Amino acid sequence: MLIFYSDDHRLHHARGELLKGELQPCFEMPARADHVLQRVRERALGEVRAPLDFGRSALLRIHPEPYLDFIANAWSRWAAQGNRADLLPSVWPARGLRGICPEDLLGAHGYYSFDSFAPITAGTWQAVYSAAQVALSAQQQLAQGASAAFALCRPPGHHAGADVMGGYCYLNNAAISAQACLDQGAKRVAILDVDYHHGNGTQAIFYARDDVLVTSLHGDPRAEYPYFLGYADETGEGPGQGYNLNLPLPAGSAWDAWSAALETACQRIAAYGAEVIVVSLGVDTYKDDPISRFKLDSPDYLRMGERIARLGTPTLFVMEGGYAVAQIGINAVNVLEGFQGI
Amino acid sequence: MLIFYSDDHRLHHARGELLKGELQPCFEMPARADHVLQRVRERALGEVRAPLDFGRSALLRIHPEPYLDFIANAWSRWAAQGNRADLLPSVWPARGLRGICPEDLLGAHGYYSFDSFAPITAGTWQAVYSAAQVALSAQQQLAQGASAAFALCRPPGHHAGADVMGGYCYLNNAAISAQACLDQGAKRVAILDVDYHHGNGTQAIFYARDDVLVTSLHGDPRAEYPYFLGYADETGEGPGQGYNLNLPLPAGSAWDAWSAALETACQRIAAYGAEVIVVSLGVDTYKDDPISRFKLDSPDYLRMGERIARLGTPTLFVMEGGYAVAQIGINAVNVLEGFQGI
Repeated sequence: MLIFYSDDHRLHHARGELLKGELQPCFEMPARADHVLQRVRERALGEVRAPLDFGRSALLRIHPEPYLDFIANAWSRWAAQGNRADLLPSVWPARGLRGICPEDLLGAHGYYSFDSFAPITAGTWQAVYSAAQVALSAQQQLAQGASAAFALCRPPGHHAGADVMGGYCYLNNAAISAQACLDQGAKRVAILDVDYHHGNGTQAIFYARDDVLVTSLHGDPRAEYPYFLGYADETGEGPGQGYNLNLPLPAGSAWDAWSAALETACQRIAAYGAEVIVVSLGVDTYKDDPISRFKLDSPDYLRMGERIARLGTPTLFVMEGGYAVAQIGINAVNVLEGFQGI
Repeated sequence: MLIFYSDDHRLHHARGELLKGELQPCFEMPARADHVLQRVRERALGEVRAPLDFGRSALLRIHPEPYLDFIANAWSRWAAQGNRADLLPSVWPARGLRGICPEDLLGAHGYYSFDSFAPITAGTWQAVYSAAQVALSAQQQLAQGASAAFALCRPPGHHAGADVMGGYCYLNNAAISAQACLDQGAKRVAILDVDYHHGNGTQAIFYARDDVLVTSLHGDPRAEYPYFLGYADETGEGPGQGYNLNLPLPAGSAWDAWSAALETACQRIAAYGAEVIVVSLGVDTYKDDPISRFKLDSPDYLRMGERIARLGTPTLFVMEGGYAVAQIGINAVNVLEGFQGI
């Protein structure tokens, strides 16, 4: 399959994240994409191409313009105030406060965020813009008849809502791609999110719609990030009722339990009659992931790809999480090789 | 006047706050209360007494029990997980997420917070519990006929909502005191918040009620913390319509503009017919305050106290903010001396 990748991801390299009460080095780092790219080449998975530039219009189908403008301009505003550290939000509109975007930059960042894991650096906008173009370029292959393509996106996207960043995510690459499929004629798109963490942004974006079925396997949000979404009782609303399927699993889940949930998701996708599948491909389900608690092993990712392939539907793989950096390439590419092997 | 004070405030000494993208030493530090106490004694303002213990019941009139339990138990849960750094929230229920309190401690802290400026340390619960008792002990003096009393509270309280902490505030000492006045027979209590920052917690707690008039002078929230409340168009709702008065002022405001707004607030309080006034006494309006942008000078605080005294109403002063540590005692006590001088 074709692989799309942009070196621009390196432009986003945040210095720290607030974890357990302290600023610590970011788990979401450029080396993640490097390892995946290296493994893609080692395994001769396919041609690696630079993305085309589809402009802002496809992004605007998911994200409102003021949100894009905020990300694009935040660093220059921040630097103009004499700051050099990453921009991190400190204040947010919780209960009892108004959901209005203040003029102040820190206030606006809190308005546009749901956690402190989406720092803005000098290169963040270019990196996230290019990651979205990577996803759109891979999506174009499917529109042109390919059975699969891999968008090696970094930063990831599935936590980003229409106008909220968080969880290392700014633009929702999977949602942007799914929307592009619809805009080019597809009637039913399914998203299969296999990242360890619930794809809250993706769910929220499509929650009231029946043209995108969102399915997700993830750590139980009662105990796991992102905590405030991803529960089994979230099944969609309005026209989207019945088109959201959450399959939370307890910490410690290994392939037996995980693959049973994957079977449930795949059967739902098949019943839906999806014309395209967008896989939010996180591999932080791996047993040695430093911030996750599932127990998948590397060969399990081959099986994962095989099961997805049996759906017999054009499939766009969009890279999401995975923080066991040395293994992320092996595990992500195993999914793709498993898929191709069928 | 009598002054109430507890050394327990020292038990809360957080190590850092997330400011401008970096963890920095906290502006809200024990030395703040020390300087005020020292100045109280230098000026022989009155007898300094330890607080009585009124228990949890008066706190529960403002804050729900799960919120109190969370603060009381958070540190032991955090330490049991092997952590030593302050507990700071990282994830919050923003747009697109559910307002449910997760089981996970970090998730729950995000649920109960609106910013990253309310760290929980080993001594936080005892410190905030005692600060609330300090406020209640001073309030009791008014109920027994005193014309004024000073609650030297630390941590401050006016940013704390019913079930959200933030802005160095955990329990809303002013709101707890105002409610105690009502519970002991008063029909109309006015809160006058002179802290530089809008008292969003106090406003939210009483927003739909007409038995507590909330008036506040503060930095314009479009540009100033807490950003998401404190606008002039917030006038109350339901039965509380007309009982909230916000007087935001631009950065750089000095005594002329500030005292004109104070006059407006005082006239509103007089028209209301308040039987008791609770002054949320922040002195971060001072010209050299490190995180604020008004330009009041030390003698202005004498004038402030004089104007409040002319209302001729029993007045409870509750200490809030002020971060120009060396001057906080002079400025706070100037208000009290100005008040007593009339």
